[in-house]
Amino acid sequence: MPASARVKGRPASPGYAEGRIHLARDTHDSDYVPASSAEGETEALQTAIAVAISGLQALVDSAAGDAADILEFQLAMLADDTFFEVASGKIGEGVQADIAWRDALDEEIAGYLASDDEYFRARSADLTDIRDRVLGALTGAGDAVIPAGSIYVGDDLTPSAFLSHDWREGGIALRRGSATSHVSMLARAAGVPAIIGIGAVGLEDGASALLDAEQAMLIAEPDAGERADFHAAHERYLKTMRDADRNATQPAFTADGERVEVFVNIADPSEVDAIDVATVDGVGLMRTEFLFGGVHGLPDEDVQYMAYRKVLEWAAGKPVIIRTADIGGDKPIEGYSIVEDNSFLGMRGIRLSLRRPAVFRQQIRALLRAACFGKLKVMLPMVSVPDEIDRAMALFEEEASLLEADGVDHAMPDIGIMVEVPSVAVQPARFSRAAFFSIGSNDLTQYVLAVSRDNADLSELADPADPSVLGLIENIVDAARAQDREVSLCGDAASDTRLVPLLLQTGLRKLSVAASRIGVVKEVVREWRKADPAPGLRHTA
Amino acid sequence: MPASARVKGRPASPGYAEGRIHLARDTHDSDYVPASSAEGETEALQTAIAVAISGLQALVDSAAGDAADILEFQLAMLADDTFFEVASGKIGEGVQADIAWRDALDEEIAGYLASDDEYFRARSADLTDIRDRVLGALTGAGDAVIPAGSIYVGDDLTPSAFLSHDWREGGIALRRGSATSHVSMLARAAGVPAIIGIGAVGLEDGASALLDAEQAMLIAEPDAGERADFHAAHERYLKTMRDADRNATQPAFTADGERVEVFVNIADPSEVDAIDVATVDGVGLMRTEFLFGGVHGLPDEDVQYMAYRKVLEWAAGKPVIIRTADIGGDKPIEGYSIVEDNSFLGMRGIRLSLRRPAVFRQQIRALLRAACFGKLKVMLPMVSVPDEIDRAMALFEEEASLLEADGVDHAMPDIGIMVEVPSVAVQPARFSRAAFFSIGSNDLTQYVLAVSRDNADLSELADPADPSVLGLIENIVDAARAQDREVSLCGDAASDTRLVPLLLQTGLRKLSVAASRIGVVKEVVREWRKADPAPGLRHTA
Repeated sequence: MPASARVKGRPASPGYAEGRIHLARDTHDSDYVPASSAEGETEALQTAIAVAISGLQALVDSAAGDAADILEFQLAMLADDTFFEVASGKIGEGVQADIAWRDALDEEIAGYLASDDEYFRARSADLTDIRDRVLGALTGAGDAVIPAGSIYVGDDLTPSAFLSHDWREGGIALRRGSATSHVSMLARAAGVPAIIGIGAVGLEDGASALLDAEQAMLIAEPDAGERADFHAAHERYLKTMRDADRNATQPAFTADGERVEVFVNIADPSEVDAIDVATVDGVGLMRTEFLFGGVHGLPDEDVQYMAYRKVLEWAAGKPVIIRTADIGGDKPIEGYSIVEDNSFLGMRGIRLSLRRPAVFRQQIRALLRAACFGKLKVMLPMVSVPDEIDRAMALFEEEASLLEADGVDHAMPDIGIMVEVPSVAVQPARFSRAAFFSIGSNDLTQYVLAVSRDNADLSELADPADPSVLGLIENIVDAARAQDREVSLCGDAASDTRLVPLLLQTGLRKLSVAASRIGVVKEVVREWRKADPAPGLRHTA
Repeated sequence: MPASARVKGRPASPGYAEGRIHLARDTHDSDYVPASSAEGETEALQTAIAVAISGLQALVDSAAGDAADILEFQLAMLADDTFFEVASGKIGEGVQADIAWRDALDEEIAGYLASDDEYFRARSADLTDIRDRVLGALTGAGDAVIPAGSIYVGDDLTPSAFLSHDWREGGIALRRGSATSHVSMLARAAGVPAIIGIGAVGLEDGASALLDAEQAMLIAEPDAGERADFHAAHERYLKTMRDADRNATQPAFTADGERVEVFVNIADPSEVDAIDVATVDGVGLMRTEFLFGGVHGLPDEDVQYMAYRKVLEWAAGKPVIIRTADIGGDKPIEGYSIVEDNSFLGMRGIRLSLRRPAVFRQQIRALLRAACFGKLKVMLPMVSVPDEIDRAMALFEEEASLLEADGVDHAMPDIGIMVEVPSVAVQPARFSRAAFFSIGSNDLTQYVLAVSRDNADLSELADPADPSVLGLIENIVDAARAQDREVSLCGDAASDTRLVPLLLQTGLRKLSVAASRIGVVKEVVREWRKADPAPGLRHTA
């Protein structure tokens, strides 16, 4: 019997799973038997594409939100005849259907991977997904079967492979992967425990294993002691989750009795349908990037207005912070944003909005009109100098005058800023025109430590708990308090139960978290008690 | 007579020029008369390549330092037969020689431009240079003639076109361009006034013009008042330059009598041959990237040792700060560094050295051996957490023990760090193991304001005089003084006469500058007097 092996990764989606390891198989081997003629081959390919489309369609029908968007993007690509035409051309030259399809897609995938644009490179995973789905239909292999309750181990996982499988009792450990990838996002939404970045370790197919996604640890062939520790940790986790559910609609007070407000982050207005407004103190971050990059091009003012109004009405008087478009960086939009090297240090957020005033003015009008339907607050992303606030506010004033002149109902919201660029974090007092601050801990961390947040090789350096980051958060909180200005934090750190105590220690009392984390973050708040300031935590010169 | 027109750009190389505008012509028009046979065409191309090579060789013979390196890279590419073979293949298919050559090079240029790697994209200018040089020889057009004393206006300028022309009395204004490009570097080295980023403005060929590269302004058809102002500013500039020359070997004292040490930055050991050691207080930054990326692959320990020793011997006991390899970011090396998005936030500097310990240990051994020959100080680039210093120091200790065991002469230098990552600038006290600090203002500015320093669209945001950057510099100076630790600044800001007074105001008393700026920076120091702290400059919460 082999000794137990512990493999450390990075957390992607929290939880615990116990099962047998399922090693992903290479999909390159095909036992395809070709038809006797080019016509037969073309027909076989056509049929396989139709099967793939109907398989994807079935998945779309049972998916929602991001999952549905991802699959619809794939469906649109499959429905386009381009790939079929390239492949049938090759079939006409005597190539068999499976190889022709693979070659046609691989050429396209290579082009995507060679792109300067990270967005297109990321889409190569969707093309791989399409390629394998049609190949599966062609060779009759269908989806690779992952036994129920397995712990899947592979290099990466495609979105549709994730969505095709019932993950109950199972989990995921990826050799590569990224916490911001589609599959990590889907796993978190579905509550499937997942870790990434475990590297090229030797693991046996079928070995028994424990996946502790809280500690980002995979233990193969665990011994009795490891099993006992795992079960105890899992039990504590389940208890916290049960308490979280039971107390979700109760406000959160620390063990000292201090009130901590917990808000929710949303990326798409439809998400609020699944959230009980009684569980939150409001919306701490509503992103508006969903409005861009769809098939319909740049967003329409009325579409925006309805989306904002829907969330404000849902919030029923609780505050809703809507962030103006944060396009660029890792969120480029073709035809709108600018392709550039070092995009995280480029034309993004408010910089791009001020550069594209026609589009920005549309968003501003929609916000001014929606402001009549609740307690709207507007937040500007990527502010780095005070002048950007002045210029944005001038546009809000101008559009308000135009609406007034046209007799359109509107109201002026409070306008605040994201604090994510170090220039703001080090001297927040210079940004006193902002009505409130919301700390973007992901970007702040990447700039303060000069580590791209999607660089897997440097993920250990990109630590939001680094004393320099926590010191700056404290600096921002102190400055906000001195000026009687509200300050919250809406980055991933607020959803991370290991980091919440450190954030509370900086003086933060407003956290905006992922919908799935509302209850558990409140539980962590309830267990926390103010300690003496941790040494080294105070902002030091 | 047209009214005067003022065009604002960004400074690339200081100075003043007065002359007529010379608009660059498109080189795409060719009046080439083909030979009657494919053989004749192939021969004509071969002759043209030979002419281009001898032209380049003549330039190399009269060039030095960076200029020679750039041209030798081009010579090596021309001497390689690959392009000729591709072009002669096309000639065999009936294409005429000039079109065949252009197509062959354009295909390669497109490949370079499509590269993910900024370094390769930048090399496309060298390929364009080669293409046009051979086309010129083929069509008999030769180099485009720029009349002496002209102010050249074009999109960009290739290195060999720069080096082919006598720029005395002339100047350069580029529509695009970058302050870090080859041509900007060459213009500064040659003392040719140049500005960049003037955009697509309408300027008439042959119009009289004034180029004020100090204010980054081009004035076409100036009126009498503008001419008088220009001449007065130019006179003041010349007087400062004359004083700078006359007083270059004198130490610099402020008008209050405070001593300010002025050091020199060098990128290649051969540069010291042209610098009088009496003009400087030592070397504030010796880069070691020149050792990497040459045709000989990764550097040899003895080659390094001799390079370091040469500079230490030249310094004759004055301090010499040598920075360990700062590869990565905008300075990738094939086969050594890692190609990545957002390379400025990636695996660069000490991060890469610690990841490639075999190469780092070689550099460490060479430094330990060279330390016997002067006052060596070693500086680690891109430090972001204290652990990186500990790990680097451990390697220095280990290699010193190995040299000791082998009976090799060596000495342990002081080990300090670059302060360029905000995590260090906000809490310098945490990095107390560093023997000294040297502020890298270029990188610090790009991280603090989250603006890539090579992003032309955002160059106004990337301002080293932003209060957030100056506040952090003051924070670093205060922390260093409190701990009795030396602190200097070696970024471009120290060479910029507009910024030197602001840097002195932060308390900095050690500046390390480009060789061409030693005298003029000392003059600015002599004119400076300590004022009351500027409002808003003190580090505020």
